Amino acid sequence: MSKIVAGLIGLGTVGTGVVRLLERQNHIRLKTIAVRDIKKKREVSPSCLITENVQDIIQDPEIELVIEVAGGIEPVYSYLEAALRAGKHVVTANKKLLARRGPELFSLARAKGVNIFFEASVAGGVPLISTLQKGLNANQINSIAGILNGTTNYILSKMHSSGCSFAEALKEAQELGFAEADPTDDVEGHDVANKLSILAALSFGRFANPEQIHREGITTITARDIALAKANGCVIKLIGLGLPQENNKVELRVHPVLVPFGHPFYAVNGAENAILVNGSAVGQILLSGPGAGREPTASAVVGDALNLAQVINLPEFESFFQPKINTTWASLTEESELAFANLVRIKLLRKGADIEFVARTLLQNGLKTQIINAGEDESGYKILSLTTATQPDAIVEEALAHVPNAIVESRLRLLQNQLAAGYQRESRAPASAQQTLRGNSRALSVSC
Amino acid sequence: MSKIVAGLIGLGTVGTGVVRLLERQNHIRLKTIAVRDIKKKREVSPSCLITENVQDIIQDPEIELVIEVAGGIEPVYSYLEAALRAGKHVVTANKKLLARRGPELFSLARAKGVNIFFEASVAGGVPLISTLQKGLNANQINSIAGILNGTTNYILSKMHSSGCSFAEALKEAQELGFAEADPTDDVEGHDVANKLSILAALSFGRFANPEQIHREGITTITARDIALAKANGCVIKLIGLGLPQENNKVELRVHPVLVPFGHPFYAVNGAENAILVNGSAVGQILLSGPGAGREPTASAVVGDALNLAQVINLPEFESFFQPKINTTWASLTEESELAFANLVRIKLLRKGADIEFVARTLLQNGLKTQIINAGEDESGYKILSLTTATQPDAIVEEALAHVPNAIVESRLRLLQNQLAAGYQRESRAPASAQQTLRGNSRALSVSC
Repeated sequence: MSKIVAGLIGLGTVGTGVVRLLERQNHIRLKTIAVRDIKKKREVSPSCLITENVQDIIQDPEIELVIEVAGGIEPVYSYLEAALRAGKHVVTANKKLLARRGPELFSLARAKGVNIFFEASVAGGVPLISTLQKGLNANQINSIAGILNGTTNYILSKMHSSGCSFAEALKEAQELGFAEADPTDDVEGHDVANKLSILAALSFGRFANPEQIHREGITTITARDIALAKANGCVIKLIGLGLPQENNKVELRVHPVLVPFGHPFYAVNGAENAILVNGSAVGQILLSGPGAGREPTASAVVGDALNLAQVINLPEFESFFQPKINTTWASLTEESELAFANLVRIKLLRKGADIEFVARTLLQNGLKTQIINAGEDESGYKILSLTTATQPDAIVEEALAHVPNAIVESRLRLLQNQLAAGYQRESRAPASAQQTLRGNSRALSVSC
Repeated sequence: MSKIVAGLIGLGTVGTGVVRLLERQNHIRLKTIAVRDIKKKREVSPSCLITENVQDIIQDPEIELVIEVAGGIEPVYSYLEAALRAGKHVVTANKKLLARRGPELFSLARAKGVNIFFEASVAGGVPLISTLQKGLNANQINSIAGILNGTTNYILSKMHSSGCSFAEALKEAQELGFAEADPTDDVEGHDVANKLSILAALSFGRFANPEQIHREGITTITARDIALAKANGCVIKLIGLGLPQENNKVELRVHPVLVPFGHPFYAVNGAENAILVNGSAVGQILLSGPGAGREPTASAVVGDALNLAQVINLPEFESFFQPKINTTWASLTEESELAFANLVRIKLLRKGADIEFVARTLLQNGLKTQIINAGEDESGYKILSLTTATQPDAIVEEALAHVPNAIVESRLRLLQNQLAAGYQRESRAPASAQQTLRGNSRALSVSC
């Protein structure tokens, strides 16, 4: 392995972890760190130059590798563009930047014969990027689905375990450092959309504009939704999902979904990430682990740098790392063509309402449903739980609006059939849980 | 990517899958296939030379890559040795060969400047080898544990779901093609020991002699053991476990173990594999997927070949793939130093036997135990279930032998504390299952 000289942009949480890991090896020499405020007190005192001027890195001919853990789009895009132009390799954890400017950056890297490494940009320390780039290269990817955001998974886990509201769970997550002061990027699903764009590039060959990805966050999930999920043997998870379509389009979507007991995502709690990849030859594989945090993310960043160090002195090695990504944008399935299966809870406001009439009304308005539960609330109103076939939202909403004197109390997405397949069947809870679930898994099967 | 010319040794199940996958790409040209019996009818009719003479591959200067999926030690060792000596790269799925002759083969490959790729040798299509070699290279591996054999996992899953005996489950597995006519390698744990040797090489730097690995198979697991596991909210899994020790030794062991509900291994059923890797920086990550079978294994084999094709024309590229394995053998923890925690079921043959006396006898003989259940069987004999602290087998057996008029009906290993930690706490079954388990997970905690 050669000794390479690196510069680091950013010395926050992840940056501090990177400095510590770099101190424990001797293949990479960290020469310079660029920070925003040089006067800020730091946990580490690295034995290298600390500067507020990024040019001290970009213009230093000795530095071959720029490690970027500052985050955000500008000024980081300009920095990395300049670094690539100067013929430096880049290791970055910046999913937001890659999702939006990936095509330009990878084009430039290719033109300059250098590489961009980005294992840390999705799923933290879980080696998902290298698996898609190298491990599964004999496969076409049929689907990729993941719990890709630790903050929202922490919040949803908390709501499930305590029965508390979204606001309460968010507050606790913020106090514990699992959520930022402004949590919008996480709780509205933007972060997952960014990661999905990168996964689309690796799985289907093109980055997707995250603004065009169908995206629903978790802010509208209520304690009642959680209770409804539980009553059906499910948990609610925010997932990102990618499916290539026959028309050369890609279907990408970010939304909460009901995950049935026995599915690998069911037990993924707290800030963990988990990803299911379906490959044409290998079938379905699962990767899971810590999706964020100082050490896991630093592990991926430094892993990338060490992989580079192994080959940097070999001529033309860069073609090995060049991801096979087309640098034009992917064409996504239109919003109006997206279809979802749902679990719906309706309250009928007219006492003595006829359940069969409701079912008939829905069917007449084009919505295939199955009523899985009918009961009454404490005030004597009829409450119906029903599943819908996989249909566009417009049809579902239109049909539900035609039921007279009814309030839709909850509407939750069901897991896509192809992702749920097999898991309910194979799940083996202790006998007591099995009995509870046998009924529900039947109830939640959707006929499309 | 360069076009490379390959020869294939073996055209059985996996070989057929490899041929099919190779037909779907154009970076590797399959020139020659060596088979044992050229007259045998085959599922594929590849457009290349089929020969009974392996020398047609080894002595062909045009062939740069030998893909070996024949299995077994000899004559395959001689073939691969000759191929490496002739300067050819090797892709192999042969765990038995690597576990026994790995040090020699890797030494030779290094000396000749060629590579051995072996992603398919452990966990089939799950990209475990590349994860250990590249993905986690900023980490020291603290532990590695896995369900690494699909046959035994299928049999144990069947015993759990049906309550049948080992013999019945084995018979069904054989009929369905999940177990071989002579199942010894699988059911006695030899196959897992071979894989553990390879994982030790990647995780701890040295191959281990599989003959020296502590190994218990699953042939003695009874329907009663399964019932005892179930009653405690657990399933029995055959696992391979590797732990580096402070004295520069490595602790490697293969044995059945009780896996509690909520642990990631609990829901791994049928022929699936699953591996937990604990890295110093990343923490715990899980990989799972199909561990065997034509397509998954072929996916790993062809993936290796494609990775080679990407770089084969670059000068000195081979150093990138050279695994950091010391080619001397690992020194293993002595059998006598291995310690296990157990769940033991004892029948007391003297009616009216004193439970406290039993507990005292065990303690006086050096065995720390906790009695978690006491009852009577249909004949009125007292039945005790107890957990032991993590102690060497000799102490456990000696102490149990001192209990007068008692029969040990079942003794099952508990999952190592460091592997079980966290999972019981985090598990979130539906409410009904949780209640069953809360008591048991307390009961199964071992005080060491």
